[in-house]
Amino acid sequence: MLKEAIYHRPKDNYAYACTNEELHIRIRTKKDDIMEVSLLNGDPYDWCDGKWNFNTVSMIKSGSDQLFDYWFVSIKPPYRRMRYGFVLNDGTETVYLTEKGFYSEPPEDTGFYYAFPYLNNIDVFRAPSWVKDTVWYQIFPERFGNGDPSNDPEGALPWGSAAPERDNFFGGDLEGVIQNIDYLADLGISGIYFTPIFKAYSNHKYDTIDYMELDPQFGDKDTLKRLIQVCHEKGIKVMLDAVFNHSGFYFPQFQDVLEKGQDSPYKDWFHIWEFPVVTEPKPQYDTFAFEKAMPKLNTENPEVIEYLLEVGRYWVREFDIDGWRLDVANEVDHSFWRKFRSEVKAIKPELYILGEIWHDSMPWLRGDQFDAVMNYPFTTNILNLFARNSITVKEFIENMTTVNHMYPKNVNEVAFNLIGSHDTPRILTECGGDEDKVKQIFTVLLSYIGTPCIYYGDEIGMSGAQDPGCRECMKWNEEDQNKDMFGHVQRMIRLRRDYPLLANEGELHFIPSDYHNSCFAYTKSNGESTILVVVNMSDEETNYHLPFNLSGKKITNIYTGEEYAAESDDLSAAIAANGFALFQF
Amino acid sequence: MLKEAIYHRPKDNYAYACTNEELHIRIRTKKDDIMEVSLLNGDPYDWCDGKWNFNTVSMIKSGSDQLFDYWFVSIKPPYRRMRYGFVLNDGTETVYLTEKGFYSEPPEDTGFYYAFPYLNNIDVFRAPSWVKDTVWYQIFPERFGNGDPSNDPEGALPWGSAAPERDNFFGGDLEGVIQNIDYLADLGISGIYFTPIFKAYSNHKYDTIDYMELDPQFGDKDTLKRLIQVCHEKGIKVMLDAVFNHSGFYFPQFQDVLEKGQDSPYKDWFHIWEFPVVTEPKPQYDTFAFEKAMPKLNTENPEVIEYLLEVGRYWVREFDIDGWRLDVANEVDHSFWRKFRSEVKAIKPELYILGEIWHDSMPWLRGDQFDAVMNYPFTTNILNLFARNSITVKEFIENMTTVNHMYPKNVNEVAFNLIGSHDTPRILTECGGDEDKVKQIFTVLLSYIGTPCIYYGDEIGMSGAQDPGCRECMKWNEEDQNKDMFGHVQRMIRLRRDYPLLANEGELHFIPSDYHNSCFAYTKSNGESTILVVVNMSDEETNYHLPFNLSGKKITNIYTGEEYAAESDDLSAAIAANGFALFQF
Ligand SMILES: [Ca+2]
Ligand SMILES: [Ca+2]
Repeated sequence: MLKEAIYHRPKDNYAYACTNEELHIRIRTKKDDIMEVSLLNGDPYDWCDGKWNFNTVSMIKSGSDQLFDYWFVSIKPPYRRMRYGFVLNDGTETVYLTEKGFYSEPPEDTGFYYAFPYLNNIDVFRAPSWVKDTVWYQIFPERFGNGDPSNDPEGALPWGSAAPERDNFFGGDLEGVIQNIDYLADLGISGIYFTPIFKAYSNHKYDTIDYMELDPQFGDKDTLKRLIQVCHEKGIKVMLDAVFNHSGFYFPQFQDVLEKGQDSPYKDWFHIWEFPVVTEPKPQYDTFAFEKAMPKLNTENPEVIEYLLEVGRYWVREFDIDGWRLDVANEVDHSFWRKFRSEVKAIKPELYILGEIWHDSMPWLRGDQFDAVMNYPFTTNILNLFARNSITVKEFIENMTTVNHMYPKNVNEVAFNLIGSHDTPRILTECGGDEDKVKQIFTVLLSYIGTPCIYYGDEIGMSGAQDPGCRECMKWNEEDQNKDMFGHVQRMIRLRRDYPLLANEGELHFIPSDYHNSCFAYTKSNGESTILVVVNMSDEETNYHLPFNLSGKKITNIYTGEEYAAESDDLSAAIAANGFALFQF
Repeated sequence: MLKEAIYHRPKDNYAYACTNEELHIRIRTKKDDIMEVSLLNGDPYDWCDGKWNFNTVSMIKSGSDQLFDYWFVSIKPPYRRMRYGFVLNDGTETVYLTEKGFYSEPPEDTGFYYAFPYLNNIDVFRAPSWVKDTVWYQIFPERFGNGDPSNDPEGALPWGSAAPERDNFFGGDLEGVIQNIDYLADLGISGIYFTPIFKAYSNHKYDTIDYMELDPQFGDKDTLKRLIQVCHEKGIKVMLDAVFNHSGFYFPQFQDVLEKGQDSPYKDWFHIWEFPVVTEPKPQYDTFAFEKAMPKLNTENPEVIEYLLEVGRYWVREFDIDGWRLDVANEVDHSFWRKFRSEVKAIKPELYILGEIWHDSMPWLRGDQFDAVMNYPFTTNILNLFARNSITVKEFIENMTTVNHMYPKNVNEVAFNLIGSHDTPRILTECGGDEDKVKQIFTVLLSYIGTPCIYYGDEIGMSGAQDPGCRECMKWNEEDQNKDMFGHVQRMIRLRRDYPLLANEGELHFIPSDYHNSCFAYTKSNGESTILVVVNMSDEETNYHLPFNLSGKKITNIYTGEEYAAESDDLSAAIAANGFALFQF
């Protein structure tokens, strides 16, 4: 037994309260080293005749990545507290793992065991219940629809008349979203994530000038209220983007510091290294990256804290928004985010808080800060497998398994899964124009754990390179839209709604990569019903034999509606070249 | 290279801000597997000609336990943010570890690397600066000194006239501490930890009746104010004990619920399973353990939160106490403790918050909840080595190394190290009456990382079995006091004060256990000066050869004052049977 490979530490992704009654326990062991793992557990205070009363319960292998196997069990401690250890068997020896190390017999002293001291309700990680069933749609407001030419910025170009540039404008606005709400409802999405709409200088609006005002090119506050009302009537949630790490260069408070230096009442709103403020050749103040136009806000200054908290509260309180997406979230202090969560959830407990973090995000996902982060590892792995062919199916499965086990299950359910955004080439471009690949990607995106997000226009087959290329005006002429792609995305969204297994009900298991020479496959299952997603990575049609005992089962391809009669309890089905299938049984 | 053994995850004990400018990075590898580890690091946004600018810096091996080596480096990222990876060499291959896994070449994409996104000042773990130099003294107030017979409880026995029982009283009080303050000052301690002094039923007072009142048997509030003033004049801090997990049975709010059931305004102050409230045979409400007399408080109820927060604030605000020790701290929710910290530190930023947690405590020591926990692993290992002979020196070193690497260094500095308390047999009793062993233990306690605590009376050689035996009245007759032991403890306290190396300046390194057949030894060093603590575990005098190049060094045994002349650059010194020495050079 390779003891050095075995890892467990209470809390975070290894031992966490899933509800206020249910604990999830995981342990990591070397790949293919251990045959059986059980959880030895009991109430810490439950003694009888001087001996601790404990039970053992089997753990299941929940996944394997390149180096490790992961084991899982869900358990309900009757008094909401638990001491526990692990019983590991590799076929030749049985070993007991406790907080104090490895033993050949279970230690009698409960002090040796791991502790989950108490399942306090308030500490349970709980994202808003609506999130896990949501399909997001990301809108870059300047480019989705121009519903009101009267608010177009000076020099705005006719819709779609030119390629998107860093500094051109086309007049997109909130009215344009209202006017196209039926399109979105028809597509079936249930949440819109808007990149920033507050007053700013650029066309992307990440350089905020006034956090309390809408950019006039997008409309006025009444329009936003109307938009949110219309969305809510259609069952669509609305999430806004908050850039709290740094302000824009033309944020008046920063301009005041530039002008007045140490005499500015806002001099402590930023991290200025010396006065008077130097911007060239290198900014002499903290910035995002080394960008002089993005001065980092001092989120430890009580005035800044109160200003930003009021921003957070204001748009929830007055406009009933449903979510905040937080830009560059990991560079802002944890302390601020805890206050932020507390303040905005006090107004609307079901508000969703989504952080932009590209790295391991566990420290922000403990229930006291964010509900989710942008799932960039998902993006990277999808692109590497389907678009770039830079990883094998085996590697894809291993990488995805690693990510799944980095976080609690209830965190994974609300991860914000994206395949592109205003910051990346469009998915069709990533795939070299291969529509079949894009369809496969949408199939996976919309049948995977987490909450999928569609970048505006990807569903009609728009293409575009790295920004600004990916920020083209939405194509509203039907002849410019890829109807086939739209139909695919629409169908997958409906299937996800009709079959909760495709969303976040049940467990995901990958079919081992060596099972088939060209098909990548996984199941979503709740024990009663299973959906098998099969994706044929090859340019040739192939036959896929379903690796299940299908005796007495009715098998349906829920995408095509085709029904299969299982012969001698099993089934083989043709999967089209670069195609996919969703078998339900 | 055993990749499966290698562990790193940002934040917590593996990557943490030590100050707002300095990061500590650690990595764990299989014991004796890796020869060299370096940290590859750079600013995430520092690019030149499309290539990331990074440096590499060597890591040092900071310790080894049973299975692993630990590596450490301290680094100051110029812009307070860092991307990093590890370069591992085992003599045959060089491997690069990033967040995305192992590579044979350093990945070009900075997205692959680990991130420490920003060293935000407010997120830095910072215990009050005075704590790491404090020597604590634990007082069980009923048994330390009876300074005012007029407040003795009915039936109180003459001081020391009987063995301590679960329910007898001897009249100890706060005035008794005031009257003996010179004794404590002479001993040299710099902080008193009082077990509970609030109104309660028992002699231990852990069954609180009124958190806002002193128990009248201990004196009135003026006496407490005078006591704290006297302590502060002597440079002694005062820490009180708060039992917030549960109230006592006679807490009026609980009595009201017992009496009025659902009609009680306090019915939601607890976790009652059914009304009317059932206490027998098993309590039908949440309790500490299964103790009906200790109903768990509902610390998610806003009224209870405000009540307990006001308790926390009141004794700080009105009495200027210096610390709160929190009983059963890990069964109360994290959310409450975050509020508690914020509220009490707002009144007194230099207040110390100490949690009673017996297990791995990282989730409470991230800077947002506690400053320290009771270091029971220290207790257990000291007892197992010195008193119970149940572990070898090798195991002791391994276990202590494990614990040291479970937490950040700045957390270890303020760990509350104890060798016994009102809940355990006294140290002399644990050692079977062997005073030499006790002296050795005090030598280690007072020269180790962390903040040591002396349980009242241990310094004069009092004995006593498991409680109530360990709660005997303090012996004030000089002929009953072990003056030799007192002198030893006093001297070690003074040495710790005079030689900051003995406290928390510099680094601790264990001398490998196989270096000497009977001596256990470690150094405390700051690079310029070193103190070597040698403890002879055998019943025979032994010669200890100092494993250092002592060329040109003046060597002093700072305990005896003896000076040594190093011969041919080295030194061997006699260590008495069951003795010890502290060499400084
Ligand atoms: Ca417009
Ligand atoms: Ca008295």
